[in-house]
Amino acid sequence: MSALAALLPLLALDRLPRTGWLLAGVRAPESVAAHSLGTALVVLALAPRVRPALDVEHAVALAVVHDVPEALLTDLPKRAAELLPPGAKAAAEARAAELLLAPLAPEALALFRELGARETREARFVTLCDKLQLGLRWLGYLREGARGLDEFRPGLAALECAEFAPCAALRDELLAAADALGERAP
Amino acid sequence: MSALAALLPLLALDRLPRTGWLLAGVRAPESVAAHSLGTALVVLALAPRVRPALDVEHAVALAVVHDVPEALLTDLPKRAAELLPPGAKAAAEARAAELLLAPLAPEALALFRELGARETREARFVTLCDKLQLGLRWLGYLREGARGLDEFRPGLAALECAEFAPCAALRDELLAAADALGERAP
Amino acid sequence: MSALAALLPLLALDRLPRTGWLLAGVRAPESVAAHSLGTALVVLALAPRVRPALDVEHAVALAVVHDVPEALLTDLPKRAAELLPPGAKAAAEARAAELLLAPLAPEALALFRELGARETREARFVTLCDKLQLGLRWLGYLREGARGLDEFRPGLAALECAEFAPCAALRDELLAAADALGERAP
Amino acid sequence: MSALAALLPLLALDRLPRTGWLLAGVRAPESVAAHSLGTALVVLALAPRVRPALDVEHAVALAVVHDVPEALLTDLPKRAAELLPPGAKAAAEARAAELLLAPLAPEALALFRELGARETREARFVTLCDKLQLGLRWLGYLREGARGLDEFRPGLAALECAEFAPCAALRDELLAAADALGERAP
Amino acid sequence: MSALAALLPLLALDRLPRTGWLLAGVRAPESVAAHSLGTALVVLALAPRVRPALDVEHAVALAVVHDVPEALLTDLPKRAAELLPPGAKAAAEARAAELLLAPLAPEALALFRELGARETREARFVTLCDKLQLGLRWLGYLREGARGLDEFRPGLAALECAEFAPCAALRDELLAAADALGERAP
Amino acid sequence: MSALAALLPLLALDRLPRTGWLLAGVRAPESVAAHSLGTALVVLALAPRVRPALDVEHAVALAVVHDVPEALLTDLPKRAAELLPPGAKAAAEARAAELLLAPLAPEALALFRELGARETREARFVTLCDKLQLGLRWLGYLREGARGLDEFRPGLAALECAEFAPCAALRDELLAAADALGERAP
Repeated sequence: MSALAALLPLLALDRLPRTGWLLAGVRAPESVAAHSLGTALVVLALAPRVRPALDVEHAVALAVVHDVPEALLTDLPKRAAELLPPGAKAAAEARAAELLLAPLAPEALALFRELGARETREARFVTLCDKLQLGLRWLGYLREGARGLDEFRPGLAALECAEFAPCAALRDELLAAADALGERAP
Repeated sequence: MSALAALLPLLALDRLPRTGWLLAGVRAPESVAAHSLGTALVVLALAPRVRPALDVEHAVALAVVHDVPEALLTDLPKRAAELLPPGAKAAAEARAAELLLAPLAPEALALFRELGARETREARFVTLCDKLQLGLRWLGYLREGARGLDEFRPGLAALECAEFAPCAALRDELLAAADALGERAP
Repeated sequence: MSALAALLPLLALDRLPRTGWLLAGVRAPESVAAHSLGTALVVLALAPRVRPALDVEHAVALAVVHDVPEALLTDLPKRAAELLPPGAKAAAEARAAELLLAPLAPEALALFRELGARETREARFVTLCDKLQLGLRWLGYLREGARGLDEFRPGLAALECAEFAPCAALRDELLAAADALGERAP
Repeated sequence: MSALAALLPLLALDRLPRTGWLLAGVRAPESVAAHSLGTALVVLALAPRVRPALDVEHAVALAVVHDVPEALLTDLPKRAAELLPPGAKAAAEARAAELLLAPLAPEALALFRELGARETREARFVTLCDKLQLGLRWLGYLREGARGLDEFRPGLAALECAEFAPCAALRDELLAAADALGERAP
Repeated sequence: MSALAALLPLLALDRLPRTGWLLAGVRAPESVAAHSLGTALVVLALAPRVRPALDVEHAVALAVVHDVPEALLTDLPKRAAELLPPGAKAAAEARAAELLLAPLAPEALALFRELGARETREARFVTLCDKLQLGLRWLGYLREGARGLDEFRPGLAALECAEFAPCAALRDELLAAADALGERAP
Repeated sequence: MSALAALLPLLALDRLPRTGWLLAGVRAPESVAAHSLGTALVVLALAPRVRPALDVEHAVALAVVHDVPEALLTDLPKRAAELLPPGAKAAAEARAAELLLAPLAPEALALFRELGARETREARFVTLCDKLQLGLRWLGYLREGARGLDEFRPGLAALECAEFAPCAALRDELLAAADALGERAP
């Protein structure tokens, strides 16, 4: 397949909303594309602070591809996935990744698979950064005046960051900043 | 559960985009709520023309509930559903319908289940009207200047309407009007 | 007139904003289509709880058509209608209903007229559900962080629901939930 | 009334869509505010070319206030106004103008009334520029790919511009440019 | 150049967002066109109250043209301008004004230049009204529930209005109203 | 500076529109964030096809940071930059990059500087991919029905891709696909 044929379906990432925000009442929320870039920027911010050192650019590349299958699947929210058979969402993502990433570049598909396996430190790190971007956008929406987003706090607070101290630090900063907002404007 | 607690999650239907349009390149497409109302209006237009007579208001009520589970599941596009195990989407919809419609009213859940079983004439009729609303919106977007929506024509052309002559007539009108546009502005 | 010619103008219901929200400062508020579907869902939630029993599906059908004339008239806000001669808005709606609903189906026009006459219990019930949907959306916007919507509370509080106990119950729940928000974040 | 109390309701002009475009299928069309500014810019372009000379800045001020009553009335489309009693729309606008413009400044109300009377040359000129801005935006939408806007051509073509040659010239330029588009992409 | 050729690029003013709001977290903020009209309305409200009298309509015309160069330059936020060489933004605006306004009408370009020179009382007055419209929109967003806009208060509070008492009065009203909101919902 | 303080300003990338599209008449165009992700995906598609081999993940990281300064500067369109003193835009970007990227990670700033210097093959390659993403989005908008975008063709056609054959191939595919559209719907 030509590069063009592989790239055209990915233009949809800019139009697809992150559905968790939609369901929680955020109108015109960020797109899947913006979330993916945001995850890559969280990676760029935190990866160089990790000890022992990570392969920073490899982690950035993992972040760039991590939600590409949504150009076919759309962003299925967590509670929707829970109504599917166990493993069905992950299996659909794996097939969508093949359909979309194999024609783009075998390297791109390999990145997606590495991420799913969570065997490398970079894969586990990027999985955390994906959740931290959610926390960052949550704080951003709160600062802009959005309300009714309390459901997002427990997931962030419970994020297991023991392997990567900079992730734990950002998680704690996010929680503290959100709580401080709540105290100022309860 | 109180009526309020049952109604609040359904407000999301107004924010959820119809993902088929999004993936095909329509920005800011109609919402699931607008599609549901549109289906009810197609029902109102065609049901009184069906012979032998249908229960028109029963069919309208079926249309109103037909996509309510998407307030939990979001609008999973057809190609996404094809990547799930056979029957997984329908099963998830059935569970979402229970979670959302049982607290609303047992009658509402019964309507959804009747629709899924497709045993009554009204259920089969509303299933067709759901697809005809897609065709109507497709024609609407084409008339407004949208392009790149050719993928929607075959599904409409293949719609099996033998049981309900007014559905066949609308399908044919839609195809003819779309083709006439294409000839004027090929 | 063909069904298609009757249905095409109704696509505008999805684009028309509810102007009361716009004037009060809600950007990108719900559409007339979403409000109409929302009213039908309020009907579905409350009608089965009413004693003596209502014709639930008839009430749903009344809700579906109740704002169709706005596809021609747009949603004239209350304060605008007050600047017109007495009865002018209702007369214009009646004419718009004829123009839009008669070609759709005589049954649809009969539903609209029944609603306007408010002689049947279902017509009076749906008129209340129309206002309760406004209250529901008001609570929804407040929960999302919208402010400056105090003008909507008195109308809801004054809603005369004596004929239908479930309507009174939802009205009171809405007011209590909104007031509780106000206390938490005054 | 304080200047602030008079200015706050006018913020709505930025949120109110021009409903003629909405009904014709243009999503997210220009606002009443943008149309008003656009009319003032058409005035600035054409008024200095008029012979005998107009009071250009007086005409600009007339354009700035010409749709301010819509902050209360919203933009009632032409076909909606035709369903009201004769003169009802103009009378409502006059009352809305009093309510909104008298507290702003008596001078502002006087401008609006001069416009309605159409006795001065500037008032008649600005009335034409209002329609020419519609034609300009029509051409703009056509150039961007919008279709289904044929209904706007006859009104522009029939615009009686004999009193002001530069208005006639712009009308003809608009029609020629739109027709040329149609020939290139029929 | 024809009037049409001069007017077409100005249609962009309706699409260009005011970037200060965007950067501060306001989604879908007002456009440059809406800001320009809003400034003209602030002028209409305040100019007639100024003593000794101003040329009100001249001031309105200055407001209408004051941001027209942004149809070419876009709305460069303050902190961006500070990263350019001293005077570079003003010089670019002057060149953009020539390119856009000279073909529109020599009178329009003269208005823009008068504004930049700040030698006439009307030019200084409109420069203040431009900032007061920012304050008015700030208060509007706060009233609608937007948060995180504290950065806009100091600039408003520091606005030097000694030459025009009605400007000082509106500035003080805006600050008091915003502070009252903050106390009610801190 | 904490990671949080460095990341918060970058949330604006999702709200900032690409102004070239806005000025050309595309409403609600892609954001700077979506463009950045899109550039990274073009890199992922093409970089593995380049001979001799590039450092693919290094190129991806360059793409991720390439427009980060716009979170401070906004997206200054080409014609606007031409009205600034020579080199002023690049100098402002360099300063914005320091302000935004140094606190994020020294590695991020180094990537931006490498890109600006265009001394490495990866930097030159990503500079081309940035322009090819513009071409890809251009084709995407054309396929969706947008018109009036002819001004984007010459820049793409003139893109000097001799150093990287896969870039030349994509450029030619884009031009051919756009021209084929034009022939089908001239």
